[in-house]
Amino acid sequence: MEFETRLTEIADKVTVALDQLIPPAQGPEADLMRAMRHAALANGKRMRPFYVIETGALFDADHKALLRTAAALECVHTYSLVHDDLPCMDDDDLRRGQPTVHKAFDEATAVLAGDALLTLAFKILASDETHSDPAVRLHLIERLADASGATGMVGGQMIDMLEEASPRDLNTITRMQRLKTGALISYSVEAGAIVGGASANAKHALAGFAQDLGLAYQIADDLLDATGDQNVVGKTLRSDEAAGKANFVTILGIEGARERINLLAAQARQHLDFFRGRANILLHSVDYVLDRTR
Amino acid sequence: MEFETRLTEIADKVTVALDQLIPPAQGPEADLMRAMRHAALANGKRMRPFYVIETGALFDADHKALLRTAAALECVHTYSLVHDDLPCMDDDDLRRGQPTVHKAFDEATAVLAGDALLTLAFKILASDETHSDPAVRLHLIERLADASGATGMVGGQMIDMLEEASPRDLNTITRMQRLKTGALISYSVEAGAIVGGASANAKHALAGFAQDLGLAYQIADDLLDATGDQNVVGKTLRSDEAAGKANFVTILGIEGARERINLLAAQARQHLDFFRGRANILLHSVDYVLDRTR
Repeated sequence: MEFETRLTEIADKVTVALDQLIPPAQGPEADLMRAMRHAALANGKRMRPFYVIETGALFDADHKALLRTAAALECVHTYSLVHDDLPCMDDDDLRRGQPTVHKAFDEATAVLAGDALLTLAFKILASDETHSDPAVRLHLIERLADASGATGMVGGQMIDMLEEASPRDLNTITRMQRLKTGALISYSVEAGAIVGGASANAKHALAGFAQDLGLAYQIADDLLDATGDQNVVGKTLRSDEAAGKANFVTILGIEGARERINLLAAQARQHLDFFRGRANILLHSVDYVLDRTR
Repeated sequence: MEFETRLTEIADKVTVALDQLIPPAQGPEADLMRAMRHAALANGKRMRPFYVIETGALFDADHKALLRTAAALECVHTYSLVHDDLPCMDDDDLRRGQPTVHKAFDEATAVLAGDALLTLAFKILASDETHSDPAVRLHLIERLADASGATGMVGGQMIDMLEEASPRDLNTITRMQRLKTGALISYSVEAGAIVGGASANAKHALAGFAQDLGLAYQIADDLLDATGDQNVVGKTLRSDEAAGKANFVTILGIEGARERINLLAAQARQHLDFFRGRANILLHSVDYVLDRTR
């Protein structure tokens, strides 16, 4: 219960922060800001902001600095969804329970709104609103760029586009996931640790936690894609199946995927032993990932 | 002569820097890096890097720091060209004398290569390769995000997409230009001034110079679009005419446009009086803009 309360609290705070950070819709270009808001203020779970803020709380990090970091990360996540949904990419009509940006507006607006959200993320991290250490902010920016650029999220999406050229095996899919979704989930706990000035050992434990959790999360996502109810999940399902794309479930099977998730969840929990009971809320988040698949 | 030599020297240095900064093409996602290189290493004039470096030289700024800043800015300029050329935007086939990225690769790769170049720009500015002051690097990042995001370049491109909804008059086109191309040209001289630790008065003079120069440059671009030779210019011409779009030349006429450019060039030169002869190379760059239209 505590976990879900915290998740909702954080989601609300991040939505309020994003509402303040996205420029107001005015001038002839107002649809650009409307499209940014359509994408960013929609009802997301805000899992990545949750991990930034709850990881930072382990080190008593400044809450305002964490919230800004979380909002920046959510801008990057949101931009990636807007671009991934485009007709030339995954061609999705539904996202977070509402029409995708290119459906609600048009393709050009979706490309530009994504570009503007990505740019805004770096603006948020660079701005001196919280008077935090400049070196810390630069480190957050550099690591976010690493996690989301050609050698991170965008690289993973590129691999995801190549199915026709080279059908995917388990190794390729695992590598793709690590880049496409894993890198940004890992960044979310790393960012909390950076803002909180965590020790190298604490960062190492958190990196292990995030890697196992991220993989479990992606397998759970593939399970949902195969078995979920579209009206509950709020995005187009069976998309991999429709495209004839291999994913964790088509390769491991439904039961095999469930077993793999359980194994990864157990490993993720073990990494948190480092914090000797102080990381309860992160532990509960692992159960939440498991619950999504039941 | 000195000006063109310097422009070529700087263009070569920036191309070498970009070649080193873009990740190598390897793994199943190698086409992503190939597309980034296709766009970024092509034969551009590199006017924005020129202004970063020559403005910085006025203040004896560190050359390596200027070169990295120039390369980051060129990444942003290049990403904007890749996305602007997409079928859902200006739908151009030719850029810098070669096929556009979505023609040489495909649309998904073009979207992703643009995203990755934008991300790389911030990575370059955040990285501590030159050991320059963290506060300076943060300032460069924040101003780049301002110049290129929703309230800058991307906002301007959004206005440029809206012609059908609201035909453009001179005021709207001037505002569009200020955002779409002017903001990044202004950033180029501002960035040189920031790296060089320029005084507020020097920054003010340079801002005036950049604003007049940027507008002259855009009007010259519209003149070239109307009167240039596509084989010499290296990009698709008559595009505004083909799309029935108003621009400075359709509104002012060819002679009116030339007069406006001359007026702006004179103003731009006046702003450089502040530097009492030390800004000769910037003065010569004004002649270059004028020469493009003859």
